[in-house]
Amino acid sequence: MITNIGLLGYGHVGAGVAKLIKTESELLGDKLGWPIRLKKALVRDLSAARNFEPEPGLLTTNPDEVVGNPDIQVVCELMGGLEPARTYILKALEAGQHVVTANKALLATHGMEIINKAAEANRDVMFEAAVAGAIPVIRTLKEGLAANRIQSLCGILNGTTNYIITRMSQNNLSFEDALREAQEAGYAEADPAADVEGLDAAHKLALLSALAYGVLPKISEMHVEGITKLEPMDFAFAAEFGYVIKLLAVSSLHDAQGPLEVRLHPAMIPAGHLLAGVNGTMNAIMIKGHASGDIFLSGRGAGMMPTASSVVGDIVEVARTHQIVSSSLRPPLLGWRTLKNDVVMCMNEANLNYYLRFRVFDKPGVLSSISGVFGRHNISLAQVIQKSQSPKTDWVSLVVLTHKAKERDLLEALAELKTMDTIDDMRLIRVEEFL
Amino acid sequence: MITNIGLLGYGHVGAGVAKLIKTESELLGDKLGWPIRLKKALVRDLSAARNFEPEPGLLTTNPDEVVGNPDIQVVCELMGGLEPARTYILKALEAGQHVVTANKALLATHGMEIINKAAEANRDVMFEAAVAGAIPVIRTLKEGLAANRIQSLCGILNGTTNYIITRMSQNNLSFEDALREAQEAGYAEADPAADVEGLDAAHKLALLSALAYGVLPKISEMHVEGITKLEPMDFAFAAEFGYVIKLLAVSSLHDAQGPLEVRLHPAMIPAGHLLAGVNGTMNAIMIKGHASGDIFLSGRGAGMMPTASSVVGDIVEVARTHQIVSSSLRPPLLGWRTLKNDVVMCMNEANLNYYLRFRVFDKPGVLSSISGVFGRHNISLAQVIQKSQSPKTDWVSLVVLTHKAKERDLLEALAELKTMDTIDDMRLIRVEEFL
Repeated sequence: MITNIGLLGYGHVGAGVAKLIKTESELLGDKLGWPIRLKKALVRDLSAARNFEPEPGLLTTNPDEVVGNPDIQVVCELMGGLEPARTYILKALEAGQHVVTANKALLATHGMEIINKAAEANRDVMFEAAVAGAIPVIRTLKEGLAANRIQSLCGILNGTTNYIITRMSQNNLSFEDALREAQEAGYAEADPAADVEGLDAAHKLALLSALAYGVLPKISEMHVEGITKLEPMDFAFAAEFGYVIKLLAVSSLHDAQGPLEVRLHPAMIPAGHLLAGVNGTMNAIMIKGHASGDIFLSGRGAGMMPTASSVVGDIVEVARTHQIVSSSLRPPLLGWRTLKNDVVMCMNEANLNYYLRFRVFDKPGVLSSISGVFGRHNISLAQVIQKSQSPKTDWVSLVVLTHKAKERDLLEALAELKTMDTIDDMRLIRVEEFL
Repeated sequence: MITNIGLLGYGHVGAGVAKLIKTESELLGDKLGWPIRLKKALVRDLSAARNFEPEPGLLTTNPDEVVGNPDIQVVCELMGGLEPARTYILKALEAGQHVVTANKALLATHGMEIINKAAEANRDVMFEAAVAGAIPVIRTLKEGLAANRIQSLCGILNGTTNYIITRMSQNNLSFEDALREAQEAGYAEADPAADVEGLDAAHKLALLSALAYGVLPKISEMHVEGITKLEPMDFAFAAEFGYVIKLLAVSSLHDAQGPLEVRLHPAMIPAGHLLAGVNGTMNAIMIKGHASGDIFLSGRGAGMMPTASSVVGDIVEVARTHQIVSSSLRPPLLGWRTLKNDVVMCMNEANLNYYLRFRVFDKPGVLSSISGVFGRHNISLAQVIQKSQSPKTDWVSLVVLTHKAKERDLLEALAELKTMDTIDDMRLIRVEEFL
């Protein structure tokens, strides 16, 4: 048994998908129980430069080698645009192929037609990569929150504009300067209109609304407003009020009969809100379910590998769901392996930063003898704070932050310090720097 | 076609599951294509008080009416504890029933046995509710990130301790006082040991590690340290260094051969990190995939309805995956409905707070005539700031924050203001308060 994949398009994301399927073939085979192979990829120009070198014979300029090829079970549409992507997807479904796509504009425009065709053909259309890159928001709405009436959605769905806004906010840049910077950094396209005017985020908001409320709103009926009119002064006033500005995608269903409130525009939000901490090219979505309460998801919204991560996740799920049907050989869902003896690292081997607090007797030479102990055990100190606890005592609090050290060395140093009668009441808290 | 569910246990979460299945039967039926029914629920005491009144005849004290009942396709184990939960689950799988469970202690202890039995019986064991309540982290690891080598996990997995830590940190309480408060608020149990000593979070960390790395670590091999030794002073020092303290669950695989670093202990983390903003009873997990980059998930980690939300989500997924097999009648995966004409709310009907900025000519009476316009259009002002732009000009910046107002009223007011020659350069940014 094998699942053969065909690509429509071998650009940025297509090359990422090819890379993941090739380099992670063992991992994917383990999870699924059988291999996934890339069979054919449709391109316009066989000789163009590629981000990941295709296998010999992979590329083709003939769509029929992918769409309707009986040897290919899953077609990944990564070419973008409305046509010929729409026609290819409809033909693939008719031919009995499953479809994975990252094409938000197509789904927001022709989603009903495609979903209906898939239902008719009893085939899947998966599109986790179409909204918010690597963030599993489609899956969360379809599956995790399946038992919920979704009350509202609120998100930052476009990395380009969030980067521009972050730069304007933190560095007091004008829109024009921040846009130029984003273009130089490769975060914004030469023609940035679809991003900065809000259309890209509006497509994503339409798709999320379809999953949340069962209704695909038309872009023309939504309030869509971009970020081109924001000025540095507004960010400063926002800060005075305790707000930050974000390009916010909002939809909510006030009651089951509607209407659906759906709007995309710059908004001031409280500086302490989780969404306010989503900066740079990151995306995030807050979903309110009537049973789940608020669920917050954040991560990379774009980029070759984050987007490919979601595309291949969808391929694995389609392969699992449908190949299972035709096979009695069902892999264990989790693939837990037996625990090997030494599989868990001994805590002594951990390499961490440490916060240490002691009570020390305040007399000359104590600090130097303490630092001597650390030095002998290869622990270097990053910061030291000494504070008297009360004027009535000779004991003071000594707080130390270490550089990275082996837990074993640290415990040995602490054991030695414990024997000193000028030290009392040792406390240890580990530090995670997330670097 | 129908999917019949049996419950083992009808406590807090069991009652929540019964409530969701009953009150959302239309929603669930729509999503799935056929109904889900609660058939039987095993309890110890038929006459105990319940959080959601069971249907007549639902409760039973005879386990055989649930486990192995050929009329029940999915067994939800919500009784907790190791036995008889383990025996019931193994028997259900042997009898060909699928299992949904929220029992983290059981899975962390006997997970290998249960997973192997499920694979052997070709049945599913789902456990989204066992880790982090309503947050779809199990699904994210199993499906969304299927194409990733997971490099590390880092999370706040216990709401009780996070509540206590938040109170200690923000209100300078001692551990004992914060614990007492948590007990009074119903967030901590009379015997809080499993929470405050870290065992509950350690079980969850073990399960996440199993999904992430394919290895279920033994609790006895993990470093597990609770929050009982934290003192208010440490929170103060942490703040001086730019940190906050959290009870952190960490695991990482440095290379494919291991060993696995897996530890649970209080840790200082940078105050600006997303995890530092996760307060009160909320849970959160940061997952680093080699392709996806960092994915951050947060939400309610416990409680009757958030946990029930995940249990019923699992039921829907099992029902969909397996009933599909036996039926040619496959519902469309999304259930998008055709767009009705008036389904999208006209933006004029939105009811929002607004930030408005004008340039106004600085002469007596201007502010009062502006506020007069707002008043006539039913818009009340929450804050007003007036700032001169430069000493050389008579024009000043006037910034206004409104209370909630209809967008229609606001646009009418702005149209009227636009006609005044003392006003120039109007800017509007909407405000989301998330209240």
